[in-house]
Amino acid sequence: MSELTRVEHQLAFLLEIDRLKGVLRQTLLCDGSRHENSAEHSWHLALMAVVLAEHAAEPVDVTRVIGMLLVHDVVEIDAGDTFAYDTSANADRAARERQAADRIFGLLPPEQGRELRALWEEFEARETAEARAANALDRLQPLLLNDRARGGSWRTHGVRRSQVLQRMEPIRTALPTLWPTVERIVTHHCGLGQILAD
Amino acid sequence: MSELTRVEHQLAFLLEIDRLKGVLRQTLLCDGSRHENSAEHSWHLALMAVVLAEHAAEPVDVTRVIGMLLVHDVVEIDAGDTFAYDTSANADRAARERQAADRIFGLLPPEQGRELRALWEEFEARETAEARAANALDRLQPLLLNDRARGGSWRTHGVRRSQVLQRMEPIRTALPTLWPTVERIVTHHCGLGQILAD
Repeated sequence: MSELTRVEHQLAFLLEIDRLKGVLRQTLLCDGSRHENSAEHSWHLALMAVVLAEHAAEPVDVTRVIGMLLVHDVVEIDAGDTFAYDTSANADRAARERQAADRIFGLLPPEQGRELRALWEEFEARETAEARAANALDRLQPLLLNDRARGGSWRTHGVRRSQVLQRMEPIRTALPTLWPTVERIVTHHCGLGQILAD
Repeated sequence: MSELTRVEHQLAFLLEIDRLKGVLRQTLLCDGSRHENSAEHSWHLALMAVVLAEHAAEPVDVTRVIGMLLVHDVVEIDAGDTFAYDTSANADRAARERQAADRIFGLLPPEQGRELRALWEEFEARETAEARAANALDRLQPLLLNDRARGGSWRTHGVRRSQVLQRMEPIRTALPTLWPTVERIVTHHCGLGQILAD
């Protein structure tokens, strides 16, 4: 431990992550009034995990799903939000986010920093049942918001049906009960031209 | 269950709570750029619980603390945020929030609505170790933000030292390790005149 006390390290991290409230996503809120930020998005996902965990295809430790969702976007403080359908920005996303994780989780007392970073890495690797459920929720949430916000970021960016379905694919296996909702929403917005035909 | 399926009820709740992102608190973000909303505030608190739970004076089930913090402000969608130092608005707060809880948790499948409402009621009652820790975090977070935002809502509202200390009092017993930080911050902002002397 450096000259800072354990509590001071913890507070340094907790004050630093306040900046996630200023990282804007492409998604609009349901009422279309403004872009969503990554902090409120993370809150929404954590509560989605509480409510929808019962639909996970595999048994999950909900606490770990929530933990992952609370930290999964923290790296965007340095690396920014990368729009899911932006192929070029996604190319170096992993490297930028890894550097961000070094710095931000590094503010915490070492063993606690490693614990939270492990949650973020588990989310990114998508190899556990918990990570698959968390990632599926992270795909589902903007779909629900775009549905309410008249096509939202699909319309702004001219996104195609096959792109949306590919992006939503993890939901089919991780949260199968939700898949009919996904298909219904995609079909509806294709009909309105808010998602482009292929 | 009514004509809606279980998933449809769950999604109705999850879409309704999107509105919490539009409920503004008196607190400013650390950079002073804007008011904080109750959704991102709830995220911040949940992550504070993950990081600071070890300092709770009594052993706590962190998952329940997090659950409480995720839902504790949902009633503000109908009832609005009541500024902690506004005595008259706080007089009928309980009744307004109870009505809000009926409506909002009532969107969920009944037994799930009861579970989440029980978490909210536990938070409000402050009778369990988990509720005391959650409430202490809810007091600590705006203090940390006001400290960074040059006195923030203390300055805007001409808040006095005794009011702040009374508001922070639950931290002294629930999170004793954090109490010296509270005292340091209050003394500092009294010195700057950003918290008024009594």
